[in-house]
Amino acid sequence: MKVGIVGYGNLGKGVESAVQHTKDMELIGIFTRRNPACIKPKTNVKIYTMNAIERMVGIIDVFILCGGSAKDLPKQTKMLAKYFNVIDSYDVHGNIYNHFKEVDSASKSGKHISIISIGWDPGLFSLQRLYGQAILPKGKDYTFWGKGISQGHSDAIRKIDGVLDAREYTIPKKKIIEGVKQGKNIDVAKNLYHIRECYVVVKNGIDTKKIEHQIKTMPYYFNDYETHVHFITQTEMDENYNQLSHGGSIFRNGVTGYDHEQHHHTIEYTLKLDSNPEFTASVLVAYARAAYRLQKEGQTGCRTIFDIAPCYLYESSREELIKKLL
Amino acid sequence: MKVGIVGYGNLGKGVESAVQHTKDMELIGIFTRRNPACIKPKTNVKIYTMNAIERMVGIIDVFILCGGSAKDLPKQTKMLAKYFNVIDSYDVHGNIYNHFKEVDSASKSGKHISIISIGWDPGLFSLQRLYGQAILPKGKDYTFWGKGISQGHSDAIRKIDGVLDAREYTIPKKKIIEGVKQGKNIDVAKNLYHIRECYVVVKNGIDTKKIEHQIKTMPYYFNDYETHVHFITQTEMDENYNQLSHGGSIFRNGVTGYDHEQHHHTIEYTLKLDSNPEFTASVLVAYARAAYRLQKEGQTGCRTIFDIAPCYLYESSREELIKKLL
Repeated sequence: MKVGIVGYGNLGKGVESAVQHTKDMELIGIFTRRNPACIKPKTNVKIYTMNAIERMVGIIDVFILCGGSAKDLPKQTKMLAKYFNVIDSYDVHGNIYNHFKEVDSASKSGKHISIISIGWDPGLFSLQRLYGQAILPKGKDYTFWGKGISQGHSDAIRKIDGVLDAREYTIPKKKIIEGVKQGKNIDVAKNLYHIRECYVVVKNGIDTKKIEHQIKTMPYYFNDYETHVHFITQTEMDENYNQLSHGGSIFRNGVTGYDHEQHHHTIEYTLKLDSNPEFTASVLVAYARAAYRLQKEGQTGCRTIFDIAPCYLYESSREELIKKLL
Repeated sequence: MKVGIVGYGNLGKGVESAVQHTKDMELIGIFTRRNPACIKPKTNVKIYTMNAIERMVGIIDVFILCGGSAKDLPKQTKMLAKYFNVIDSYDVHGNIYNHFKEVDSASKSGKHISIISIGWDPGLFSLQRLYGQAILPKGKDYTFWGKGISQGHSDAIRKIDGVLDAREYTIPKKKIIEGVKQGKNIDVAKNLYHIRECYVVVKNGIDTKKIEHQIKTMPYYFNDYETHVHFITQTEMDENYNQLSHGGSIFRNGVTGYDHEQHHHTIEYTLKLDSNPEFTASVLVAYARAAYRLQKEGQTGCRTIFDIAPCYLYESSREELIKKLL
């Protein structure tokens, strides 16, 4: 199975590494909008310009798209889906259905398979939401993110006039997690589950009180949250706030039984990730295998994580799966 | 979708209750080897003898088999798979592949769908093993069971001469779980993960030292484990050791990245169940929906939890799933 990577940021680097850990995939090329001469891959893989993609028909089985969800993927996935099997990690929750519809029609017209929104949220967390709700229809979901950097919230702070750099850490509140773990039904609003810890570098002589106020009152991103703001130097930022670690938990607390004798159940799914992009890349690579197999079966169109039978992710045969893992 | 239950023990009662919590299923009947007059269901459902099953062709869409794995299911699933869509919770790990082959050929000859070995282990835990290994191929699995009663181990003690009743609780060792949670790779043998706590009622005047020795030296079940034996009265047993609660955790600790810079990741899946049979029943009911839908698509043969795309478990349409859960 021959794989190509589009975009060589942290996610693309993660895919390059994850493909090395498989036995059934070969990385054919990395495709970039930058000057290929400026890119030093970690393996011996070839670097191509984006224009070279059109020559890859019949050569590359699945393209793993590693661009950003804001600007790259809405165009790239749709464009490439017509000519190749593709997979992306599109994560703008509110727009996923539109993205799905567009990519689906492109894939169908080119008779290819595409899989969108693969990662951990959307992705593995979405899967746990589905399994939890299907198994315990009477119950409640709880999702906790972090501790980890939120790119969206960091970007929102960086746009404030006078801010030079910023990182926002989302941190779930321990007491609330503990309550949910014990099967309690917590009735507080979602924004009270998390603390937003902001590290900010500002221009010399700027009024930090004003910046702090601007952050804490920013609608949607911060005003409904417990938000802490810390002003630091660029050196401190580069040295201490540069981790790619992330994680989170998703719980389903549900009840079964007759009305007069109910039993409580808790399903917990927790991820602790040293490298968010490398883990997301590993999920993408497993689902790229599924895209390849689905097309071999003659299927076409766009799929989500909900549509893929788990066996498509695994290298071994069905017999081995049943004998070893069931 | 019309459902029938075969067998009315704890699991059958759980299914009766779980079907009430769905919007798309109707429970048509409970089928039993006992005298139907002796069975008092919790709902208004009809009770039938096993002979009545043959009249249910065209009436019942899916039979949920709630018999035991030792004696009932190896015969029942295969027999009924020829005439109906069926689902079971067959859990003898070492024999699942044989069971699969037999049920598969019966289902194919009758053009029906069967799903075997549904529950949490085998079942949801198997699923997590697959997802974990597919996403983090470089890594290690850890499975912890309990705290909960092991039926097999309890039965093994009951077979000892002089024992009137027995319950065995499997309890995972906290220190080991904590190490695994922190991403450590634990290199001790599996039998050292768990403690076996045995509560035993014996005949008057029996030599308890001898019974204790027999339990602790029993091959496979106890001799390799830290085993504690407590002798109690039947009254104590009935009052204090009658819970149906269970649970467990499954971890995948894996690494990603290039050889010289590796990142650790931990995936944890934990179940805390007040009622083991009611939870298992809830998993069966969700997968019964999948069996029905697969046959409607014209598919036939036997499936495992690995073969079923998650969307088949959920009542809503694909559009709703993407919009609400992804």
